[in-house]
Amino acid sequence: MTTLRRSPENVVVPRGFLFGAAIAGIKASGRPDLALAYAPSGATAAALFTRNRVVAAPVEAGRRSLKASKGRMRMVLVNSGNANCATGVSGRHACEHVCREAAKLMAVSPSEVFPSSTGIIGVPFPADKVVRALPELIRRKSETADSALAFARAIITTDTRIKIASAQFHIGASKQVNVLGIAKGSGMIHPNLATMLVYVFTDIAASPAELQVQLRAACEDSFNVMSVDGDTSTNDTVLLMASGQSDVRMRHAFVKKKFSAALVHVGQSLAEQIVSDGEGVQHVIRLTVEQARTRREALVVARAIAHSALVKTAWAGTDPNWGRILAAAGACGIPMDPGRVQIHIGDQRVCHNGTVHPFDQNRAHHALAQPECDVRVQLGRGKNSVRFLTTDLTAEYVRINADYST
Amino acid sequence: MTTLRRSPENVVVPRGFLFGAAIAGIKASGRPDLALAYAPSGATAAALFTRNRVVAAPVEAGRRSLKASKGRMRMVLVNSGNANCATGVSGRHACEHVCREAAKLMAVSPSEVFPSSTGIIGVPFPADKVVRALPELIRRKSETADSALAFARAIITTDTRIKIASAQFHIGASKQVNVLGIAKGSGMIHPNLATMLVYVFTDIAASPAELQVQLRAACEDSFNVMSVDGDTSTNDTVLLMASGQSDVRMRHAFVKKKFSAALVHVGQSLAEQIVSDGEGVQHVIRLTVEQARTRREALVVARAIAHSALVKTAWAGTDPNWGRILAAAGACGIPMDPGRVQIHIGDQRVCHNGTVHPFDQNRAHHALAQPECDVRVQLGRGKNSVRFLTTDLTAEYVRINADYST
Repeated sequence: MTTLRRSPENVVVPRGFLFGAAIAGIKASGRPDLALAYAPSGATAAALFTRNRVVAAPVEAGRRSLKASKGRMRMVLVNSGNANCATGVSGRHACEHVCREAAKLMAVSPSEVFPSSTGIIGVPFPADKVVRALPELIRRKSETADSALAFARAIITTDTRIKIASAQFHIGASKQVNVLGIAKGSGMIHPNLATMLVYVFTDIAASPAELQVQLRAACEDSFNVMSVDGDTSTNDTVLLMASGQSDVRMRHAFVKKKFSAALVHVGQSLAEQIVSDGEGVQHVIRLTVEQARTRREALVVARAIAHSALVKTAWAGTDPNWGRILAAAGACGIPMDPGRVQIHIGDQRVCHNGTVHPFDQNRAHHALAQPECDVRVQLGRGKNSVRFLTTDLTAEYVRINADYST
Repeated sequence: MTTLRRSPENVVVPRGFLFGAAIAGIKASGRPDLALAYAPSGATAAALFTRNRVVAAPVEAGRRSLKASKGRMRMVLVNSGNANCATGVSGRHACEHVCREAAKLMAVSPSEVFPSSTGIIGVPFPADKVVRALPELIRRKSETADSALAFARAIITTDTRIKIASAQFHIGASKQVNVLGIAKGSGMIHPNLATMLVYVFTDIAASPAELQVQLRAACEDSFNVMSVDGDTSTNDTVLLMASGQSDVRMRHAFVKKKFSAALVHVGQSLAEQIVSDGEGVQHVIRLTVEQARTRREALVVARAIAHSALVKTAWAGTDPNWGRILAAAGACGIPMDPGRVQIHIGDQRVCHNGTVHPFDQNRAHHALAQPECDVRVQLGRGKNSVRFLTTDLTAEYVRINADYST
């Protein structure tokens, strides 16, 4: 049995990791804006990055370090308040400078430092502020759950809540594997502030290649099937680090299966926390697209529906307007036959074979008025499906993102 | 010289067409909701339809009639208030019934009647109301500019203004060709109300094949390079009809060129009228994407920028946030090098080689605060460009589209 813990009070920290946070003074608010995760005995690592062609300096640096170190990492260094993106050559130098200084202080190789940044785009990166805060950051590192929570707090930007989830499973009578995920992100959001960052720490023993396979699969079922506004950040990063200190090796199929379940649990919990904290979000929609030829096809349809301004505004108005859902699906390029499409909102069928199915308007309206609502679209083309997590588009989202002060 | 007339007062009606409007009682408001265009001596015709897989009954019928009549049409019959979409077999029968009755009254073939519908989706089509109003509609037909304006008024739904434009050109001393365009659409908009409809009437003499070539090319430079919310309607239709009564034949290259210019003028004017009447639109953005490898590539980038919720909300807030524009371009799948990208807002460069270019924030803010603003993105990849017309995304848009009354 995998045990999932979402509540910050119940967080279990995997063995072999220490966490810390500090105030570097990048955030104007004076809140913590520098976070450290440290694996004293080292860790194997794998990562996935944004597919945006515009990438921040730390994304380039992280990718390079993982390659140079052959997937071994000792430190994760995250700052919030400045994304170090669209900052040119000086941004790259600033990132390298920070990694070098951190490595020096901890006597590790610079290529064992994994950097991340989130915050405003196109503003010169304040490397000096970060470097000045490093000694204090390192001094504060500890293996307590409180330090992990401090890490979670220091990486958020416009988030209203920290995002954290952990899962455990047992192998035999005595061995326990822990998985801890910490994330930030609330859509791709506030003026210039972007990005989803996810860090997953585990004490399983696994090669970088094994981690990469697990991470890619888990992302397919969590972060790749959610969206708030459909925009893709320049800094999105998902990192998985394994200390090996549980003495459980990934090798066996039954261990892989248990680890995979724990990782997907943590990923899905973090994805839900991110979506429900989306800016201006009033309703989370659990969208299921079924009966597609391929999973890819189901995903194309789900994204088309989830990114339609008309569909999202209807959800904001708790309007069971299935015509917009059908039209968004019809426009996505999949050669579907509308005459075979069924749509369900809440527990009712609202569209049968592409035309209206008699339903209770008030019940559908009430279902959409809940914090979470199921919407199910069946294409009548095949046997593949996808579950997608998305949100409504509210006037509050526009207000937040259109907010401009001269 | 092509003369373009946008003002309804100056509309010139091409020879060989009569127009009419009536109240069928489909619109709850009691406003005119049935429109007729009639070519007593017949006309050649070509049309383009929505690429949405979900298409309304009249779209299927119009496509079939054009094929059956080999591109000859005598009547256009448009109703507003009900889109006859997602209405199944009964919707198709209702459409055919209306066309047959209209054909009978005018003693033409049913395949010479081109039907269109716009309005609510998924509600049974009230064919009887339309049929009852046909005699009055036909009685009212006339060749005056006022009748053309009445046609324009009867086809609108949530539009706040009618959309009409005409252009003329001369061949030799005595021959004049007239082009008259009438449209409806204001984004893809109000709860269940969708659709862009465009009808262009001309008195040039041309084969259906010649018209199809001209129409496709003109649409590439007008309706295909604009968007309000990125949604694609189920009823979109662009029809071009030619009566031949100017005695000018399309045949010669110099006539083709003049006609093409007139058609593009009318199309662009209508596209501008549609975009600036978009729901909740405060700012129209004239987006230019330059230095792409191909025009197609420029269009992909333009659409990615024009459909980004983050970019559109920044425009709503008159925020010269070039980072969002860069990030939206970077996420569209074109393998661009951000280090070669330049971005201009108004008359200022704001991003140089992917990083900030010093600019006057207030001036950029002021430029975006105008009803229209130029935004120019240079990719540094080639020599192709596209001009794209789009809008901001305002809280008012959300309010209108989220409006739901139980």
